[in-house]
Amino acid sequence: MDTHGLLMVFTGNGKGKTTAALGMAMRSAGHGLGVCIIQFIKGSWSYGELKAVKRFSDNIDFRVMGRGFTWKSDNLEEDKRLALEGWTLARECIDSGKYHLVILDEFTYLLHYKMLDLDVCLDVFSNRSPSQHVLVTGRYAPDALVELADLVTEMQVVKHPLQKGIKAQRGIEF
Amino acid sequence: MDTHGLLMVFTGNGKGKTTAALGMAMRSAGHGLGVCIIQFIKGSWSYGELKAVKRFSDNIDFRVMGRGFTWKSDNLEEDKRLALEGWTLARECIDSGKYHLVILDEFTYLLHYKMLDLDVCLDVFSNRSPSQHVLVTGRYAPDALVELADLVTEMQVVKHPLQKGIKAQRGIEF
Repeated sequence: MDTHGLLMVFTGNGKGKTTAALGMAMRSAGHGLGVCIIQFIKGSWSYGELKAVKRFSDNIDFRVMGRGFTWKSDNLEEDKRLALEGWTLARECIDSGKYHLVILDEFTYLLHYKMLDLDVCLDVFSNRSPSQHVLVTGRYAPDALVELADLVTEMQVVKHPLQKGIKAQRGIEF
Repeated sequence: MDTHGLLMVFTGNGKGKTTAALGMAMRSAGHGLGVCIIQFIKGSWSYGELKAVKRFSDNIDFRVMGRGFTWKSDNLEEDKRLALEGWTLARECIDSGKYHLVILDEFTYLLHYKMLDLDVCLDVFSNRSPSQHVLVTGRYAPDALVELADLVTEMQVVKHPLQKGIKAQRGIEF
């Protein structure tokens, strides 16, 4: 069958974006296909997820970039430098042809907070190999990214346990 | 930390419900916690997903119930019998206390198409052990289920590759 590389976006404020990215990585790895996951927000992946990914170390490369969860930094220049470093790695992975699927987890924040040039990123996505699948996750996906993408799902929060005062649960939310 | 069993629902017409369920199963299994996945629509899980789950056979039990994807059957009684059989298994898993997380994948269809008594199901969810996590996926989650749940995400389709005439891709959608 013909491989048509998809540009995919999981966005919205609900739970399930990174979880679905992890599931998709497993699905590809299950087929024996190579996956690279680049985590743009350090610490956003839990011990449970990291251990799960490690079981697939033959098929999944996992890379951590960036630093804390918020980009409200006291050192904007340093954040921009880290963002660019992460993006350079992402670009190399996309251009390498080595992976069936490249996942840029929480990448939208870098665009939303203007850590990176949106046009440059869209250009790389547009000019990638026609068979290269790319999945971008995170809130606030820019309109132009949604416009370019082939598959976009918005995970909308209908209810969240915190609304009932329930703390995050091990093995479920982290 | 205290475990507060969550009743979770991933619904909506977008991609990512079962994918996120798979990711959550991996997350729990990564922690070494037991998971039971009951697939209510036979054939809805792909070879890639099944192979991924098999790597976690020490932590994840996977059970297939039901039959074809649609419930527009020529044998309604047989469908109801299979639905009840699946539900009986689900109930046993929930009541067993054996699993950290029980996933009822595509279960909402059984409720939507009235294969099962909604009140009976909600009763079992309500009266489960307070530490038991349950995740239900599928379109058309009934209002009463959403009402009861602690966490509900609606995966909304913003864009789907089929809209551009692109076929489903291996390792991505199956």
